[in-house]
Amino acid sequence: MKDKPERAVVLLSGGVDSTTTLALALSEGLLCHALSFDYGQRNKIELDAARAVAGAMGVKEHHEVRIGMEGITGTALLEGSSLEVPKDGLDDGVPVTYVPARNTIFLSFALGLAESIGAGQIFIGANVVDYSGYPDCRPEFLEAFERMANLATMISTSGGHSFSIRAPLLKLTKAEIIKMGLALGVDYSLTWSCYDPTPGGEPCGLCDSCRIRAQGMKTAGLPDDLRG
Amino acid sequence: MKDKPERAVVLLSGGVDSTTTLALALSEGLLCHALSFDYGQRNKIELDAARAVAGAMGVKEHHEVRIGMEGITGTALLEGSSLEVPKDGLDDGVPVTYVPARNTIFLSFALGLAESIGAGQIFIGANVVDYSGYPDCRPEFLEAFERMANLATMISTSGGHSFSIRAPLLKLTKAEIIKMGLALGVDYSLTWSCYDPTPGGEPCGLCDSCRIRAQGMKTAGLPDDLRG
Repeated sequence: MKDKPERAVVLLSGGVDSTTTLALALSEGLLCHALSFDYGQRNKIELDAARAVAGAMGVKEHHEVRIGMEGITGTALLEGSSLEVPKDGLDDGVPVTYVPARNTIFLSFALGLAESIGAGQIFIGANVVDYSGYPDCRPEFLEAFERMANLATMISTSGGHSFSIRAPLLKLTKAEIIKMGLALGVDYSLTWSCYDPTPGGEPCGLCDSCRIRAQGMKTAGLPDDLRG
Repeated sequence: MKDKPERAVVLLSGGVDSTTTLALALSEGLLCHALSFDYGQRNKIELDAARAVAGAMGVKEHHEVRIGMEGITGTALLEGSSLEVPKDGLDDGVPVTYVPARNTIFLSFALGLAESIGAGQIFIGANVVDYSGYPDCRPEFLEAFERMANLATMISTSGGHSFSIRAPLLKLTKAEIIKMGLALGVDYSLTWSCYDPTPGGEPCGLCDSCRIRAQGMKTAGLPDDLRG
């Protein structure tokens, strides 16, 4: 018999995938701690979306962590990078918006938070269908992280609960994700997807993330104002 | 035939172990990028030691990364914690100075940096003899991290080199570490070990880290002014 709802940590960027993941975790009755990062991303505006989503969806707590990414180079996604976010459509291979070890870093913080608050589950909106280029979204990476997490922590060595890394969207298309979110009551107008907002704070409409969002909304039968 | 020396990332806290690890990495002819963290530790003074060590030993670059640890609780090692650093001698079990997922977080940043600069080796001064209580110093954790790292990154999926996590001090006693460092020319007066410096910036002499250092120096036949 459980007295209290189980806790979970949910990585929340404020985009479509992480917001839907949060909705799923909440629908399981979990007490959710959302975790967002200010890591010098070009699209810092997504943090406003994360706050709006966390507020609207009723998380237990929204943790916003500021981390320096000094020394991390070769990515177009960080502010001040000389590389540009591609605007000419989706390509094969790993996109230049890949940030070295980003999901590893995010999941590591999530693990520290999970151990601190006694959460046994960590949710991530990783997806291999529409973002197949990112190595740190693949199931084999997530499995290896979970295995490592269960050796890294005190709680898992003392007979306590072990950690699960959950990526419920892993093999869904963007349209399937959106339909599922709608069924769970997600308000996608709160979310943000664009990698490279205009100076006026509008989505560019041309980056991979805008294109994938627009296509997903269209396929799901939704009008999208491209917010994100 | 190699044209350029190989690069390595070395986690450097400024203590005895990480400094000796850096000396070992340098002795292999590696071009070393030292990586230190300002993570709200009580003993922030160790960052001065890290800078002094990095400067004296001739690293290629010293990266200092500031990271928030909001939400990470249950540890005495972070500034503002209500828990106190124990001063009454070494105990069995995981000490309260354990920081949830700290080595996982540090190694994750090291991985991002390594991928960015094309380094294939990441050095960490983890040790299971004198710090046997920390789960994230154990060989099985380090092996699991290495496996995960090689699935997390772009470079390892494209036929590029893979990452090694190297912990050369893992099974040495503190005295053995110090003797090895002396043979490599390490100046331990630059290093810092104390977890809980006095308001005047002196080592407390009573925390686990001070005790282990003093014992190690004594066994190695060195006088120690307890700096650290």
